[in-house]
Order: sequence, then structure tokens, then C-alpha cells
Amino acid sequence: MPTDLVAALDIGGTKIAGALVDGQGRILLRAQRPTPAREDGDTVMRAVEEVIGELTAGEPWGEVRAVGIGSAGPVDASAGTVSPVNVPGWRGYPLVERVRSAAGGRPVELVGDGVAMTAAEHWQGAARGHDNALCMVVSTGVGGGLILGGALHPGPTGNAGHIGHISVDLDGDPCPCGARGCVERIASGPNIARRALEAGWLPGPDGDTSAAAVALAARAGDPIAVASFERAAQALAAGIAATATLVEIDIAVIGGGVAMAGEVLFAPLRRALRDYATLSFVSRLTVAPALMGTDAGLVGAAAAALRAYPDAAVGRLRPAVNR
Amino acid sequence: MPTDLVAALDIGGTKIAGALVDGQGRILLRAQRPTPAREDGDTVMRAVEEVIGELTAGEPWGEVRAVGIGSAGPVDASAGTVSPVNVPGWRGYPLVERVRSAAGGRPVELVGDGVAMTAAEHWQGAARGHDNALCMVVSTGVGGGLILGGALHPGPTGNAGHIGHISVDLDGDPCPCGARGCVERIASGPNIARRALEAGWLPGPDGDTSAAAVALAARAGDPIAVASFERAAQALAAGIAATATLVEIDIAVIGGGVAMAGEVLFAPLRRALRDYATLSFVSRLTVAPALMGTDAGLVGAAAAALRAYPDAAVGRLRPAVNR
Repeated sequence: MPTDLVAALDIGGTKIAGALVDGQGRILLRAQRPTPAREDGDTVMRAVEEVIGELTAGEPWGEVRAVGIGSAGPVDASAGTVSPVNVPGWRGYPLVERVRSAAGGRPVELVGDGVAMTAAEHWQGAARGHDNALCMVVSTGVGGGLILGGALHPGPTGNAGHIGHISVDLDGDPCPCGARGCVERIASGPNIARRALEAGWLPGPDGDTSAAAVALAARAGDPIAVASFERAAQALAAGIAATATLVEIDIAVIGGGVAMAGEVLFAPLRRALRDYATLSFVSRLTVAPALMGTDAGLVGAAAAALRAYPDAAVGRLRPAVNR
Repeated sequence: MPTDLVAALDIGGTKIAGALVDGQGRILLRAQRPTPAREDGDTVMRAVEEVIGELTAGEPWGEVRAVGIGSAGPVDASAGTVSPVNVPGWRGYPLVERVRSAAGGRPVELVGDGVAMTAAEHWQGAARGHDNALCMVVSTGVGGGLILGGALHPGPTGNAGHIGHISVDLDGDPCPCGARGCVERIASGPNIARRALEAGWLPGPDGDTSAAAVALAARAGDPIAVASFERAAQALAAGIAATATLVEIDIAVIGGGVAMAGEVLFAPLRRALRDYATLSFVSRLTVAPALMGTDAGLVGAAAAALRAYPDAAVGRLRPAVNR
């Protein structure tokens, strides 16, 4: 009998979260482990298997029809492998096969974490009702995903929407990815903080030099802090406008820690978008804060699984290997 | 009875071309008029109607099931209107309705000229067999279109793939579109020529200061001419890499007058792509010259019509209004 229940995994450099999620996006059961990111690949996989083990132990597991994974990238959905930058033990690691085997042979859908967040915002969040949208996370890095023609667009390898690594300043500062002037190199939290400090911004008595502290200073009117957010907003605007010009999105949804700065970021971003999104067909482009919070990765991985396996028949699946 | 015959219109600032095209992309009948680009909108439309009139007068017209239009942009496929930059008499001009009426009520599909060229290269040219491709025209301007997931991706308004107006230099020179540092502002033919002249390049005895003349000088080893093409190649590479990073294309096909420069453009372009397309999932990205030549607009408009109206029944259509 078909069911609307799926399992979801959200795999990052800090934690491995799992959940059972129903067809309305409600979380019925959760499990979590810290990511042993500095350990070898099999040790990391054991943490994933422990999370899956907690999910398979629950009573609803029998109705789970598929597993969705949103993983830190890069991922390769066509090969079923992941190579998260912050998990050096996994390089071309066959995550899909391992998860399938831990989940009793159920079908597994793998997408990048930016794509998962996008699926969540489109399903239940700020991009709901938009057929063409870019969703982004602006945090330690800058990631994203695309909704095109009403559907999630993960691309052949599950990495589409990687806006953090498009160059908006072709002669700009070198980016760790190897290119120059990437959106992430200008707009990520650490780069907002670095730029403010380099320009002479002085942290408060608590010594906090994070982008959140720069945002507080900007809200209090510190001109150097304001300027650093304005530069980040300009780079985000150029990247968002480029995306809209290429694929005709009408909304950009922005989440992640840097988006918590609120109008300190969004006000200059809206101004800069008018400078870069100039063609008639992108003039109605808007920006909005993300709504899904920390569960976006889990809910989005579930959405990706429901989309990829709309009517998998559970009766044909093998029982789970409980651990 | 369904048929594979469609009519195609290629509308630019210089000429209005029309053809009957069969399901194999063969052109059975042609018509053409110069575009009276400086005249009022109705005068321009009369030239379009004359082209359609020549097509409807032919014996095969009765089997034509739909009309495809590739037009200079911007276009608005959702509204059925066009506002070509070089045809000031047409602003929000209801081209789809007028063509439908001149074509006996047959269904009409409108796309931008970059999208039409892309449809042609995917159907019969250099992008054939590629499920995810960017096709570009680098000429007086820079335009383009996208193939995503095996299908043409015109976007809601028919303008997707507008790579000429993404900014790759956010602090760069102002572009006539209103933004800064657009790909077109750096890589179009006139900008290649302007940059060479500004840097001290001297044209030959014939006084030719076109990009084609700069290409000839570059081929002969003139360092200023070489540098101007290298800068254009760098901007194209940043734009192509951004597109691949956003939507996972694996080939960029480049046509138009500037692409005729051959290796003077393509050699530095391939080098620069290695600098900007750095993530694992875009590392196999290649570039190739376009194959479809001057008929790309007509063949692509036909492809767009065949795609949009896969099985229109001709029996239900009204007879053409012959003029």
C-alpha cells in the first residue's frame, strides 16, 4: 500500500540529523548524532547508521517508502556519492548504497544541502506558490537551490543552485574553490567579519568578531559595519540578478545566520537588486527571508524523496536491518 | 490529421525571415523582408505579414500546424508581446495575436532569439545529445538560451539564458542595460574592438576597426589584439562557469560573428574556463563552436513550435487569410 511517510537525513559537518516525515511535512520521530568529521569514513558512516537505527526502531518505520538525504556538498547524485568539504574521510563515498542497505533496501534520493533547503522553502516556506525561485543559505558558506517551472531542479548531480561559487568579480580576491570573486568570498559571514576588521571595525568588550557582532554594530550605526554588509548585499544582488537573468526566477529566499541580520542585510540588498536586475523580465524580482528554520534540511530531504518516489509500493521492500 | 510541418519566423533588427520547416528541420519554402526598423509598429507588422503571405501562398501551407517565432528581445511570451531594443516602434507589441490572425488562427509559439538559436543547436547542431547545455550568440550583443533536463528551457517569458546581461564584474563599466560589468559589456564584438583601439591597436590600411579585424590582427600575433580577445574570453568563461554552477550544463555552444575568430577566442576561453569552473560537478564542462549558421533562428523557431504543439490537429484550424 502506498504511503506518505518517508525518512529524511540532514548530513552536515557538525551534526547528522534524521527524522520520519509525513506527507504534510510533519516530523514524527527524530534522531541525531554529532558528526565525527575528523574520523575515517566508516566511523562517520556508523554515526549515520546509528541515526537510521533509531528511526527503524520506531513503530511507523514499516510504512516508510523512501529515504531522502540532504548532504553537505559536493554531492554526486548520479553516482550516489558524497565528498563534503568538511568531512575529509568521505571522498566519493558511496553514501546512497550504504544508506539503502541500512534502510532495508528502500529507495534513496540524494541532493545537496542547498537543494534540500530549497525543497523545504518551496513546500512549506517562503517560496511556496512560486514556480521559479532561488533559495539560499548565507552562513559560514553560501549555498542554494532552484525551483524551475514549479518543480525542484537539482540538476543531474544534485548540485544545481550553487550560487556561492559563481564569480561576480572576475578580477577579485581568490576564493578557496580556485576561482576569484565568488559570491561566497564576498558575502559569507566570515568574509563580512573579515572585511569589517580589516577596515578598522573594533569589536565590543566581549571580543565577539563574528558577522552577528558586525550586524549588531551596523544596527547601531557603525559606518564600517554598515559598509561591510552593503558590500555583501551588493555581491548577493549581483548573484541573484544573474540567476534571474539566466533562468527567470521571481523570488530569492535567503536563510542562514547572515540573513538573521534582517534589514541590515535586506535593505541594501533590495537597493542593489535594482542596480543589477535591470531587464524587463526580471524587474519584478523580490527577496524574502527564509521561513523554515533549522528543520529545513530534514523537511527538504523528505520533500525530495516524496518527489523522486511518488508512489513506491512498500510491500515490495525488504524489512529494515535494525541495529 | 496531425502533421510535422510548421511555419517559422526569425525577427531581428535587420531582417524578417520566414520559412516552412518540416519535422526533420528541412526548410521547404523561404521568404524574407528587410526590417523597417525605424518605422512605426504597424509598418513593421506589414513586413511580417508580407513574409507570412508568401508562406501561406505556397501549396504546403494547408498542412502547417503551428507557427514558431524567434524574436529579438526582450520578448514576453506569457503576454504574447515583444519590445525589441532595435525596433522602437514595437513596445509591448502584441505580435503573437497579429501573427495568429495572419496565419489563419494557427497556434503561435514565441521565444527570444537566443532561445530559438538554442533550440536549433540542440535539435540539429553542436548541442545535439546534450541534456544540459548553454547556447550563445556572441556578436553585436551577447545572447543565449538553455537546454535543461533534455528540453528547451525558455522560462515563463521566453527570455531564459540571457547570459549577456549577467554581471561578472560588479564594480565594472556601466552597461547600457543599467547594470555594471555585464558579459556583453566586455565580450561583444564592438567592445572587443573598442578595448583594442583604446589600448593603442592600429587598424590596417583598409581602416577596418571591427572585431573581425582585431581577430585578424590577433591571429598575426598583435599583442594588444590578443589581449582584447583574452579579456573577452575571460568574461565569457566567468559567465559560462556561473551558468554551469547554477544549472549544471555540460557544454557551452558559441555562435555569432565573434565566434568566427576561432581559436583566437576559443583557446583563451578554454584556459579561462579552468580558472572559473572549479567545482567537481562542472569540471567536465566543454565549449564548442555553433554549427547551425544563419538558419539557426528559423530552424529553432520551428523546433520551439513543434515542442509547444506536438500534435495540433490541422483540421480544426481556420483557413489562412492570404494576402
